[in-house]
Amino acid sequence: MSNISRRKFLGTGTKASLAGTAIFASTNSIEKQMKNIFIHHVYFWLKNTGNLADRDKLVEGLKKLSAVKTIKHFHIGKPANTNREVIDSSYAVSWMLMFENDANQASYQTDPVHLKFIEECSHLWSKVIVYDAVDVS
Amino acid sequence: MSNISRRKFLGTGTKASLAGTAIFASTNSIEKQMKNIFIHHVYFWLKNTGNLADRDKLVEGLKKLSAVKTIKHFHIGKPANTNREVIDSSYAVSWMLMFENDANQASYQTDPVHLKFIEECSHLWSKVIVYDAVDVS
Repeated sequence: MSNISRRKFLGTGTKASLAGTAIFASTNSIEKQMKNIFIHHVYFWLKNTGNLADRDKLVEGLKKLSAVKTIKHFHIGKPANTNREVIDSSYAVSWMLMFENDANQASYQTDPVHLKFIEECSHLWSKVIVYDAVDVS
Repeated sequence: MSNISRRKFLGTGTKASLAGTAIFASTNSIEKQMKNIFIHHVYFWLKNTGNLADRDKLVEGLKKLSAVKTIKHFHIGKPANTNREVIDSSYAVSWMLMFENDANQASYQTDPVHLKFIEECSHLWSKVIVYDAVDVS
């Protein structure tokens, strides 16, 4: 089925953002809320701060890394153009992953594709901070 | 249409996670990748570290805050049970927001609902770190 048909089927209002899985709650009142997910958010600082070639090498590595099967969704980001006092925009690359559960995240850590990424790209970064978050029960 | 029908329509494989909006790329090769989004990820540390009553007050405040119309998706989290050296699990609450664009995030900052949240809940936290990320172009 084409994307146009799918959009038509789902509608173009807020319901259009509903996914078919447990990640997005399915009742109208909380349809914006993501649930039953493990968010693994990694921020990378480059050894060569501000070096766009190195940044792009890291991004290419992350694209390959995204092939890991247990990754449900991912986003590759850079700092937005915001600058309030509480914002840390000193990082170079944001790597946000969603997993269906703890076990899938744990599996990702030892996946051969992940180990190869570390082998090939770890020389690029000087610092990594990871925040792992699960639903507040 | 019921959720069961929707699931049947979308299928139960990887395509089931496709959303109908631009947030999720629509071709098979990159369907896992979130695109065209502004991720605003906030981590809160409580004044009363480890105080679950205060944590829950903050969570209740965030649930009210989620009513802001420009928020596309949100997740309210707590640290997962992971403990490698690079992981910062010292925060109390993770507040991950997705906006469709920079303007919607900027609008959220001055939304009356947001200002009320700050007024009602800011006494609960001692530290906030924000990471804003947009697609790497």
